Amino acid sequence: MTQFFADIAPITYQGPDTANALAFRHYNPNEVVLGKRMEDHLRFAVAYWHSFAWEGGDPFGAQTFERPWHPQDQMDRAKIKADAAFEMFDILGQPYFCWHDADIRPEGADFAGSLRNFEEIIDYFLGKMESRKTRLLWGTANMFSHRRWMSGASTNPDPDVFAYSAATVKTCMDATHKMGGENYVLWGGREGYETLLNTDLTRELDHMGRFLSMVVDYKHKIGFKGTILVEPKPQEPSKHQYDFDAATCIGFLRKYGLEGEVKLNLEQGHAILAGHSFEHEVAVAAAEGMLGSIDMNRNDYQSGWDTDQFPNNVPEVALTYYHILRAGGLGTGGTNFDAKLRRQSLDAKDLIAAHVGAMDICARGLKAAAAMIEDGGLDAALRDRYAGWDSNDAQEMLNSDFDSIFANVVSGKINPQPRSGRQEILENYVNRFV
Amino acid sequence: MTQFFADIAPITYQGPDTANALAFRHYNPNEVVLGKRMEDHLRFAVAYWHSFAWEGGDPFGAQTFERPWHPQDQMDRAKIKADAAFEMFDILGQPYFCWHDADIRPEGADFAGSLRNFEEIIDYFLGKMESRKTRLLWGTANMFSHRRWMSGASTNPDPDVFAYSAATVKTCMDATHKMGGENYVLWGGREGYETLLNTDLTRELDHMGRFLSMVVDYKHKIGFKGTILVEPKPQEPSKHQYDFDAATCIGFLRKYGLEGEVKLNLEQGHAILAGHSFEHEVAVAAAEGMLGSIDMNRNDYQSGWDTDQFPNNVPEVALTYYHILRAGGLGTGGTNFDAKLRRQSLDAKDLIAAHVGAMDICARGLKAAAAMIEDGGLDAALRDRYAGWDSNDAQEMLNSDFDSIFANVVSGKINPQPRSGRQEILENYVNRFV
Amino acid sequence: MTQFFADIAPITYQGPDTANALAFRHYNPNEVVLGKRMEDHLRFAVAYWHSFAWEGGDPFGAQTFERPWHPQDQMDRAKIKADAAFEMFDILGQPYFCWHDADIRPEGADFAGSLRNFEEIIDYFLGKMESRKTRLLWGTANMFSHRRWMSGASTNPDPDVFAYSAATVKTCMDATHKMGGENYVLWGGREGYETLLNTDLTRELDHMGRFLSMVVDYKHKIGFKGTILVEPKPQEPSKHQYDFDAATCIGFLRKYGLEGEVKLNLEQGHAILAGHSFEHEVAVAAAEGMLGSIDMNRNDYQSGWDTDQFPNNVPEVALTYYHILRAGGLGTGGTNFDAKLRRQSLDAKDLIAAHVGAMDICARGLKAAAAMIEDGGLDAALRDRYAGWDSNDAQEMLNSDFDSIFANVVSGKINPQPRSGRQEILENYVNRFV
Amino acid sequence: MTQFFADIAPITYQGPDTANALAFRHYNPNEVVLGKRMEDHLRFAVAYWHSFAWEGGDPFGAQTFERPWHPQDQMDRAKIKADAAFEMFDILGQPYFCWHDADIRPEGADFAGSLRNFEEIIDYFLGKMESRKTRLLWGTANMFSHRRWMSGASTNPDPDVFAYSAATVKTCMDATHKMGGENYVLWGGREGYETLLNTDLTRELDHMGRFLSMVVDYKHKIGFKGTILVEPKPQEPSKHQYDFDAATCIGFLRKYGLEGEVKLNLEQGHAILAGHSFEHEVAVAAAEGMLGSIDMNRNDYQSGWDTDQFPNNVPEVALTYYHILRAGGLGTGGTNFDAKLRRQSLDAKDLIAAHVGAMDICARGLKAAAAMIEDGGLDAALRDRYAGWDSNDAQEMLNSDFDSIFANVVSGKINPQPRSGRQEILENYVNRFV
Ligand SMILES: [Co+2]
Ligand SMILES: [Co+2]
Ligand SMILES: [Co+2]
Ligand SMILES: [Co+2]
Ligand SMILES: [Co+2]
Ligand SMILES: [Co+2]
Ligand SMILES: [Co+2]
Ligand SMILES: [Co+2]
Repeated sequence: MTQFFADIAPITYQGPDTANALAFRHYNPNEVVLGKRMEDHLRFAVAYWHSFAWEGGDPFGAQTFERPWHPQDQMDRAKIKADAAFEMFDILGQPYFCWHDADIRPEGADFAGSLRNFEEIIDYFLGKMESRKTRLLWGTANMFSHRRWMSGASTNPDPDVFAYSAATVKTCMDATHKMGGENYVLWGGREGYETLLNTDLTRELDHMGRFLSMVVDYKHKIGFKGTILVEPKPQEPSKHQYDFDAATCIGFLRKYGLEGEVKLNLEQGHAILAGHSFEHEVAVAAAEGMLGSIDMNRNDYQSGWDTDQFPNNVPEVALTYYHILRAGGLGTGGTNFDAKLRRQSLDAKDLIAAHVGAMDICARGLKAAAAMIEDGGLDAALRDRYAGWDSNDAQEMLNSDFDSIFANVVSGKINPQPRSGRQEILENYVNRFV
Repeated sequence: MTQFFADIAPITYQGPDTANALAFRHYNPNEVVLGKRMEDHLRFAVAYWHSFAWEGGDPFGAQTFERPWHPQDQMDRAKIKADAAFEMFDILGQPYFCWHDADIRPEGADFAGSLRNFEEIIDYFLGKMESRKTRLLWGTANMFSHRRWMSGASTNPDPDVFAYSAATVKTCMDATHKMGGENYVLWGGREGYETLLNTDLTRELDHMGRFLSMVVDYKHKIGFKGTILVEPKPQEPSKHQYDFDAATCIGFLRKYGLEGEVKLNLEQGHAILAGHSFEHEVAVAAAEGMLGSIDMNRNDYQSGWDTDQFPNNVPEVALTYYHILRAGGLGTGGTNFDAKLRRQSLDAKDLIAAHVGAMDICARGLKAAAAMIEDGGLDAALRDRYAGWDSNDAQEMLNSDFDSIFANVVSGKINPQPRSGRQEILENYVNRFV
Repeated sequence: MTQFFADIAPITYQGPDTANALAFRHYNPNEVVLGKRMEDHLRFAVAYWHSFAWEGGDPFGAQTFERPWHPQDQMDRAKIKADAAFEMFDILGQPYFCWHDADIRPEGADFAGSLRNFEEIIDYFLGKMESRKTRLLWGTANMFSHRRWMSGASTNPDPDVFAYSAATVKTCMDATHKMGGENYVLWGGREGYETLLNTDLTRELDHMGRFLSMVVDYKHKIGFKGTILVEPKPQEPSKHQYDFDAATCIGFLRKYGLEGEVKLNLEQGHAILAGHSFEHEVAVAAAEGMLGSIDMNRNDYQSGWDTDQFPNNVPEVALTYYHILRAGGLGTGGTNFDAKLRRQSLDAKDLIAAHVGAMDICARGLKAAAAMIEDGGLDAALRDRYAGWDSNDAQEMLNSDFDSIFANVVSGKINPQPRSGRQEILENYVNRFV
Repeated sequence: MTQFFADIAPITYQGPDTANALAFRHYNPNEVVLGKRMEDHLRFAVAYWHSFAWEGGDPFGAQTFERPWHPQDQMDRAKIKADAAFEMFDILGQPYFCWHDADIRPEGADFAGSLRNFEEIIDYFLGKMESRKTRLLWGTANMFSHRRWMSGASTNPDPDVFAYSAATVKTCMDATHKMGGENYVLWGGREGYETLLNTDLTRELDHMGRFLSMVVDYKHKIGFKGTILVEPKPQEPSKHQYDFDAATCIGFLRKYGLEGEVKLNLEQGHAILAGHSFEHEVAVAAAEGMLGSIDMNRNDYQSGWDTDQFPNNVPEVALTYYHILRAGGLGTGGTNFDAKLRRQSLDAKDLIAAHVGAMDICARGLKAAAAMIEDGGLDAALRDRYAGWDSNDAQEMLNSDFDSIFANVVSGKINPQPRSGRQEILENYVNRFV
């Protein structure tokens, strides 16, 4: 056992009135909400990269964190990092975690060397998981940090990088499968461009489509039953990322015939960067049956980059879970915190508290969403507003043509009268629950 | 003849050195660029609404313009407006114009009354067009200004509004067809939502898809040979507009099986609002063969709404035409100025000068783009950068699978080495031409 | 009595558990918070313009509302509007309201005619106020809607407009004084520019400074005891507004020697447009002793213009009141809702519900803020973080010079060690109260 | 001599028609513009940090550049870096460069160790400068990268960091003075906050004001004749930086009585992040006599962070130099490129080409600005627009009071009539020159 979290006891549910900074006030895993345990609704996951691999740097500053597993270039320290991570999973009672290959293993001298390191650490993880409840929500490949990916992975102008990417994803899918992961995620942070001047957009999109088809083929070949997910983000690090937002990804999947095979991992911060609310992105994916999983980390509304902060606004989180619950829940997905501490939050206690607070916010949001669903007020308002479309006349009209509709309108039979959209009343309604 | 432009003579080409504020310095219609007359490349159009119907209001202020055709609620003044408009087309030598129904005819007491007004003014236009070169680039229906559209047109919760919309578009398509219009455009400014709380996203999208299918069916029924175009815009007036950007529209068209029937009318200002450069939107549409036409009006980069200003930045415009030329040109589309004067620009001379300046900027942009194509520097850079993909090995790899690629990579045969993207050098190259 | 609100009874406090859409769930005027009645903390005001003069238009659409006082160009209907307004004040139990001259009186044929209308309606208002509790929080002049202001009011290139502005503000200050108004506000929506190309920035700023000095002189001359306030906003309708944000206004006031005479009226929506959180603007003004009053209306985070929506996010509102309470409260200021209904919210009930919801949100925010102050957790954290500065050594160092400090540092005596900023822990703390 | 730029000959002026990628097409140092050599107008400077210390990392990726002076932790390699830097200055004929202490010397074991390294490298630089024309435009201290600055420098909650900052700036001012630097710059990237929850805004601003006073005192004490400059930036790395924009800085300087001692170093990218055009920031500073120097590096308009790209848009650059020329030029300041290569631009040739292109863009902008000044069109338009203010009546009115102005207006003598602002005509005018 490491000493990193030595002073911190497992977090317990103590109810809304506790002043204990390290207790759950709302997250009570076994509490039943809409007929299901809260833990089974929320399916929380820790993001290994932000919580354990990120060292506190930003574009203007170096490392601020000093961890027992620094520097992260040796296998023995990778194991110390894993020890601390699983200790945190235990403290939080976390059901899931997620990794990139590069978070968990030191880079090797070459591909084969990196792979050996990776396989060794996967086995080390598996040993830890034997006696624990924590499972893998998803694995993914880091194909953006090393300089070889600077011009993209599957969309790289150099076919050798495509090859290196394919080999990398294969190993990450193998590891995810071996660990019983429930999803496999692709985030294409470098799949985009810095300038159109040096970019063959058509060719790159075709290569990305082909790559994703290979992912799907490989999934079936190895019998992986999890869900393949892509994660939209409009930009950063690229000036433009091909997986811009949910609608763009869905269009891309449909173009390459993958709409039945791939779903979306949506992140609140990325929604905001793309000019959307998070509930918009969730609703768009849900409308197409492509809601896969969520990264429930917020962006600062005054910052133009991805701040990846732990969620802290219940009203926003509640609307997200409302749309998730209406879509039937998260399925094989979960609530991942793709969130990092602020770089001034140096202490182990900060790391625990950040997760505790985030889990509580999500629990409050979930309960508010469930209460709205049980109350039924929003559903009733929607049914009422669109009731006209439920008539036979309306459906016949919808299936007719311009000429017949025109005849009805020009005769004066149809003269539509506006009705209030009642937005403020509905917003007030939501505020009864959050 | 009206007195509105009485002091203003037809604009002539006088070359780059003239100090005459009302002369073309770059736009020379008959000058041949890449084997085609400049006029035939650019296919300029005046937007009737901004130039003749807009009265100078903004969200915080009322009308500033005082025109002989104000107030715009009587047919006789609609004809004075038309007289002035065609006088301006003559002054500019403009080959095209565009209208919404509501720009050109006064609203009637009911649908039939509005239609009578519309038909009368269409005939009045046709009379004017007999003796002139100016043609209709596209017609469109204004389904966003009147209060009946406040909750959408084809996506309205009230089926009566869907019907009213269908009848309206039918009449606008009829008029466009009658006038020999080369395209028909749909911009869904109210096809979106103010709040998801009162919105059935799935239903509304399906209705919008169905509506567009009816448009396509009607086009074929009446034998209209022009192109059907949708115009993306992310928001304003809606908080969220369904036709968010090019990629979203393309995904939507593909979902509803319309990708072979409908193309895009792209606007620079809308690109910017959606977080894209204009050349990005053009390149995305071109990559799918869906580039239809452009609205070449810029947004202010420091304003968060659609400022619809005349273009004034040659380097930006040149990159747009570069992508248009590479895509084979504008086809049935053109260069529309969906641009309004600033509301302090009160005079007839301002209106003429704004168009003259915009046409000159586009002409400079076009010539720069053509020069880059003739020089071939950007194409060569692209070919060089992606040359690796032209090999048989690369193509075989692309058509293989993860296992075989993995075998090559793990053996150490593939070890990609980054090459410079040369962005600054390419930017410098462009600056040789603009 | 009008029939406009005929079906709506006065709003009463019914506690958090009521499902009544037209009841206060949190706002309980007589409830004592930190030793003061809630009503006396919050000092709510209705904005006459948005609630009664705005007709539901937006840049792409005309009027959607149909009110008994439309069209608003006749004195008799101005009185019906006033009747309805005061009926709403009664229904809400509203302690304050605010107006622009142009909201309450029809425009006359000339300045003198407008003034006669204005004086008549002011007397009409005074008659209504005799028997009521509702008072005037502030008056202001609309110097942005009429075309005469299109190029600015006090900053207009035409000195005649400066004169017209001065005369206008004089009459509005007179009326405010006569009605016992507690503040007078200046918002310079057109005091800025559309393009620097036609703008003499230096001259315009000097004119604006001179104008504000005249306002202050006139205040003293007539014995008006209220506070003079300026309202920052970065842009819209202007491309750039001189009163960009709190810091810019404070610098301006200091330059023209007005920092002791003028305070700020801060608006959440304007904070957001300027790239700030609302609590930032409040904290900046408070740090300078220039916090005057607030407009507690939010902007949509995904829209780039001023959406002026009623507040609905308790965590945000709570942080604002926290900074207000720490600064000693609102003084002569209040909580104005410079908020308009969404243009689809057509009904009288929407108008009432919007205010009820907003007042409840503010009440919740105030109570949460008060609870944080009583608990003292944030204050304690701050004291602890800056404790080093309370030592004599630190204060001596602060008053010393580079050479002496250098001597200490180079000797190795000073070697600072980072301490956690504890941001997530503090955010969690706030979430215990909201 | 290093081999880094071995293949690259000194850049010469070859005129606009050359296709040579490594030649000046517009920058001709000895060409006289408005009576002064182009070199003396523009006063170009290389930013040591971006060009030589930055390694190509971004928030999602590690180092991409491989330079002979990597890793940068040893004095011998710091000297190789200096050798290469001065070789580039020679190749470009660059008159100036700028540094942070941390760019040029390896960090030592403690303050005294870092200082020894710093003094050694300063002497090494001085040796190189003996035989060269290249001078120091400004020096500055990097008080944002090392973890000790994570919570601010002069605004740190820990007085020891204030002390460390004071000692650091003293050494950088000493070195700047010794090298004959013409300015000293302070950029407070960490002088701001991540969250107001842990920030005492009032205290921090006072400390920052006190610190800047110490800088000014020390300047006078050592007889440094250069200009002290602060560089505004709204955010990044901080969520909010105190030196938000020009207006905020000016207000701050005035508050602390420093407006006669300190000027501004303005950066285009930072203007954009703050919601301003660059010419706005220049005009604001010029209006107050506080224009000091410029960082002429652009931001990408579609990215929400500081992209620090080399300038490439002549029309934008021309307007900036127009305002600079009207303000009397750059004085002791210059045109610094606080710009970095894109991280995919790996080659030495990219670094040279980026500077060549940027210098050419600035030269074109300067010449266009000078031509506009010589032509006088903008000045004439401004004089005409404000001519009304030049009358005695207008000036008397400006110095009168509300009562006397009111008397004139109410009598009907003053009835202002709007005149066109002619924005499009002026924009067209500018396009004749760019
Ligand atoms: Co993110
Ligand atoms: Co994510
Ligand atoms: Co537009
Ligand atoms: Co358009
Ligand atoms: Co507002
Ligand atoms: Co306001
Ligand atoms: Co910068
Ligand atoms: Co800079």
